[in-house]
Amino acid sequence: MNEVMVRPEFAVFVVVLVIESIKALLLGAATAFNRGKIGKYLNQEDADWLGGDAVVNDDPGPGRLFRAHRNTLENLVPFLVLGMVYLAVGANSTIGIVYFAGFLLSRLAHTYAYLNRRPMMRRNAYTTGWIIQLAMAIHVLVQVIGDNF
Amino acid sequence: MNEVMVRPEFAVFVVVLVIESIKALLLGAATAFNRGKIGKYLNQEDADWLGGDAVVNDDPGPGRLFRAHRNTLENLVPFLVLGMVYLAVGANSTIGIVYFAGFLLSRLAHTYAYLNRRPMMRRNAYTTGWIIQLAMAIHVLVQVIGDNF
Amino acid sequence: MNEVMVRPEFAVFVVVLVIESIKALLLGAATAFNRGKIGKYLNQEDADWLGGDAVVNDDPGPGRLFRAHRNTLENLVPFLVLGMVYLAVGANSTIGIVYFAGFLLSRLAHTYAYLNRRPMMRRNAYTTGWIIQLAMAIHVLVQVIGDNF
Repeated sequence: MNEVMVRPEFAVFVVVLVIESIKALLLGAATAFNRGKIGKYLNQEDADWLGGDAVVNDDPGPGRLFRAHRNTLENLVPFLVLGMVYLAVGANSTIGIVYFAGFLLSRLAHTYAYLNRRPMMRRNAYTTGWIIQLAMAIHVLVQVIGDNF
Repeated sequence: MNEVMVRPEFAVFVVVLVIESIKALLLGAATAFNRGKIGKYLNQEDADWLGGDAVVNDDPGPGRLFRAHRNTLENLVPFLVLGMVYLAVGANSTIGIVYFAGFLLSRLAHTYAYLNRRPMMRRNAYTTGWIIQLAMAIHVLVQVIGDNF
Repeated sequence: MNEVMVRPEFAVFVVVLVIESIKALLLGAATAFNRGKIGKYLNQEDADWLGGDAVVNDDPGPGRLFRAHRNTLENLVPFLVLGMVYLAVGANSTIGIVYFAGFLLSRLAHTYAYLNRRPMMRRNAYTTGWIIQLAMAIHVLVQVIGDNF
């Protein structure tokens, strides 16, 4: 193990990434399952095979799961980038744990709110995760520029 | 090179990532090329520039390429996360090679099946890649929790 | 810090990733903000809460921001993969800096062109970033295969 991997914030980062990845996998499978349940597919060959209709736009049920999945990935990509960079530049450990844990809680709340049609909670959860990522970005940029230039 | 990078499963992981990235790049370019070939664009300025129509929903041809591209990225993100974590926590080397190679084969089969309208093969390939990722997730969570808490 | 993290191309890579992540975060928030400004939402509960209509397809304004966001992430994922692999296999430092800086410039130009409806500039920027990524992919594949097999 190198010296990044023995830090406590590394373990927290790993747990956040794995939970968010599992959530994304479950949302993706749920979208496909839901399409099958109501018989509305995006591909003609699926409708021919399993019985049902091919539609251009997803029905509201799978459409909601799809958007929750998409929003999870849209946030997981910059968080992955910023978290790795945060660990790599060796920024503050305690603040890192606060960022990572806060991100996980905000994203679990976002998915809960999306699937349960609670728009205010969804907006607040999205905004919280968004601010955390922006804080991480500024934090690491300041540190990288300070260390290198 | 640190000690992660000299392990054999690291080389396999790298090859899988690079091939899947190349596949994603090719699918993205093919989508754009296909839109141009049939003259159906998502942006009005493209239709004005190159001749053709601006459409709200992609035509079936580029739409299929787009969905194969999207599905590739939807799976590449959690696989990237879980594979890096798998290497970082130092989980079993042989099982790692089986996971990574199995993922690559399942994802190549998925894209083949999508582009050739073979829905049963596509579903089985998707499910195989999905189960492999879930197995990786459980594997690393068990190991991280065992090592740290 | 391990030996990857002290190389100059690592600092450039980090800056590129952080800037592209910030850009993605801003585009995502701008899309949501734009939906609110014109009162056209993708979820019925948002329309009920904030006043406005629920639409199946995004309006042209947020739709454009959404596509610029999506294209940013579609390119950030393979670039992240290929850049990390490039650093991990220890490929040429100067060429790496050229790849990374060229990618950043091409992607900033792409987003500028997308939001300002300049299709030729957008196509050229997309193609430039695409070729850089393909060059990185071939570069690392040749090196990994040469080193390992």
